[in-house]
Amino acid sequence: MTSQTPDSSLGQVHIDLGDRSYSIAIGPGLLDAPATYAHLPVATSALIVTNDTVAPLYADRLTRALESHYPRIHLVSLPDGESHKTWETLNLIFDALLTHGCDRKTVMFALGGGVVGDMTGFAAASYMRGVPFVQVPTTLLAQVDSSVGGKTAINHPLGKNMIGAFYQPQRVVCDLDTLKTLPPRELSAGLAEVIKYGPIADMAFYDWIESRMDALVARDPEALGHAVRRSCEIKAWVVGQDEREGGLRAILNFGHTFGHAIEAGMGYGQWLHGEAVGCGMVMAARLSAALGLVDQAFVERLTALVRRAGLPTEAPVLDAKDNVGRYLALMRVDKKAEAGEIKFVVIDRPGHARVQSAPDDLVARVINTSVRLP
Amino acid sequence: MTSQTPDSSLGQVHIDLGDRSYSIAIGPGLLDAPATYAHLPVATSALIVTNDTVAPLYADRLTRALESHYPRIHLVSLPDGESHKTWETLNLIFDALLTHGCDRKTVMFALGGGVVGDMTGFAAASYMRGVPFVQVPTTLLAQVDSSVGGKTAINHPLGKNMIGAFYQPQRVVCDLDTLKTLPPRELSAGLAEVIKYGPIADMAFYDWIESRMDALVARDPEALGHAVRRSCEIKAWVVGQDEREGGLRAILNFGHTFGHAIEAGMGYGQWLHGEAVGCGMVMAARLSAALGLVDQAFVERLTALVRRAGLPTEAPVLDAKDNVGRYLALMRVDKKAEAGEIKFVVIDRPGHARVQSAPDDLVARVINTSVRLP
Repeated sequence: MTSQTPDSSLGQVHIDLGDRSYSIAIGPGLLDAPATYAHLPVATSALIVTNDTVAPLYADRLTRALESHYPRIHLVSLPDGESHKTWETLNLIFDALLTHGCDRKTVMFALGGGVVGDMTGFAAASYMRGVPFVQVPTTLLAQVDSSVGGKTAINHPLGKNMIGAFYQPQRVVCDLDTLKTLPPRELSAGLAEVIKYGPIADMAFYDWIESRMDALVARDPEALGHAVRRSCEIKAWVVGQDEREGGLRAILNFGHTFGHAIEAGMGYGQWLHGEAVGCGMVMAARLSAALGLVDQAFVERLTALVRRAGLPTEAPVLDAKDNVGRYLALMRVDKKAEAGEIKFVVIDRPGHARVQSAPDDLVARVINTSVRLP
Repeated sequence: MTSQTPDSSLGQVHIDLGDRSYSIAIGPGLLDAPATYAHLPVATSALIVTNDTVAPLYADRLTRALESHYPRIHLVSLPDGESHKTWETLNLIFDALLTHGCDRKTVMFALGGGVVGDMTGFAAASYMRGVPFVQVPTTLLAQVDSSVGGKTAINHPLGKNMIGAFYQPQRVVCDLDTLKTLPPRELSAGLAEVIKYGPIADMAFYDWIESRMDALVARDPEALGHAVRRSCEIKAWVVGQDEREGGLRAILNFGHTFGHAIEAGMGYGQWLHGEAVGCGMVMAARLSAALGLVDQAFVERLTALVRRAGLPTEAPVLDAKDNVGRYLALMRVDKKAEAGEIKFVVIDRPGHARVQSAPDDLVARVINTSVRLP
């Protein structure tokens, strides 16, 4: 896609999906401003869904900002972390909705990171067969990726994000100020998804990320603002063409096939999603090189950038006896797999990705090359 | 709407929903015929979802009919009954899908009554964010109502069908031969939903039901065939105009507001859904009369027909101390309620329904008039 030059104007990114279109507001100071939430669907009640880490920081502030819009505002706080992205936790949201007498018009607000956003979105898709919801992402990863595009899900013990829905929010509110309180590990995890957009869609953006990585890690507001905005623009461009992942959208899963295997194999929550994606991108780049699509210099350049973001680049051992077998088994339950054949997002030239299968022995070699020495 | 004269041609009813359109095949001998399942989406595997009552009757026969279409056919059998329409049971379907390595193209088949259809549909909507599914209803209730129109759901302890999705099947297969094995109580339950279509949409069909009720109860194949076909036509007409229940579709819930309160208040599975709807229609007709919309003769005519179908017409006591309060509390969590105000489907003239609220004291009087004397 055509790149834009970096600029400091933030404002709005529009996702064009017909009658499911919506905007992403990006900027500082948005969370507390009642105007941020104007012109949402009218309702007598709202439910804020958050987690025990985010609630003390932002729940009261969001509640106050919503007070002029909704007569009744309820709150449910979930345990924090990927290991809680389960039906049991999801049911806490349904319990809250029903206990508070929430109806078909109740607007739900997802206040937190990717796990809160994915679970709130799926709860909104399913409660009474669908109520409106708003994403208020407070992590970099959620702002640049998971809150945008309508993918919602929970995990199943046998696979990540296996149970969910395509369900678009009414609005996404990315308050850049929330990134100031983010733990360093979470910031790095978000940078993995920022980096992702370069190899798959926009090498000019990738050049910019390389030039500004130190500023991004140091949380320079202007750099973070541009990273969020450009990431959302690319994601909006992809999702606008392929909402339900019939084709193109799968490129957004660059690094995720290996990454999901790492997350599941280590136990959800051991590696952050972004950490697994960071390492997974290095592995997917190596596979692309092994397939003769990109050169070794491209792999090394990506590896260096992932490392500079504070992310792991060496794969964990998932099974001491049969590590390759374990990786392959976990990747075969990936949603992109068909008839047991694993599909990988590979870079076929810098700035462009495609989905294809690969011989098991080539994949095995990539895993063995990538593994962390004990 | 305009009625058709009864005829014996069955064949197909079409549901027109743009790119989600599909047909309902109605006739004898369909379940076993491989041709019934031609031209469905191509897949390497299929999963039949059924229950422990239906499996011994039809699972092998459906498996054989599908063998020429799918290389691998898996089966999962759920415990039977409304009390099992829960997340725990739904998870048995997800376990089966993942254990068998089912992918995004796997076609699911719902073989059974309304509970199996609702749960299979919700599982299909949610597995990997959506896989295709086919309804093969084996009860009269599922053939005339629940398998058509894409409403899927599970129950929550605090309310019926509270968690679900609008998700259309690829096809509905109503094999009339399956009605021969239906227990009498299930047949009556299905007749409740057949009767429903008269007062809300088609008094000529209602006249026909009255004239053929004895034949319907005696399972006359021609009478049952016409009842299924005409019911599906009316449902297709309503759903084609309002897929997601923004307005008109709510009339299909005639009798269901009182009915859901009875089902939940008695404990799911104590009263069959159709039994609760039968009694609920009598109560909703009484409310319509109390509101001055229809006359007492209309109420008595409906009560007589519901009774002839073998259905209860007297409401159960849900709370010995505060029966009216219990009914009202249960009805306030109905999906049609808004801001705690209960919405009822009332008959505003025979053959036409609308949704409106009603004063609590009027509703209380209807409940007290309807209650079964101890």
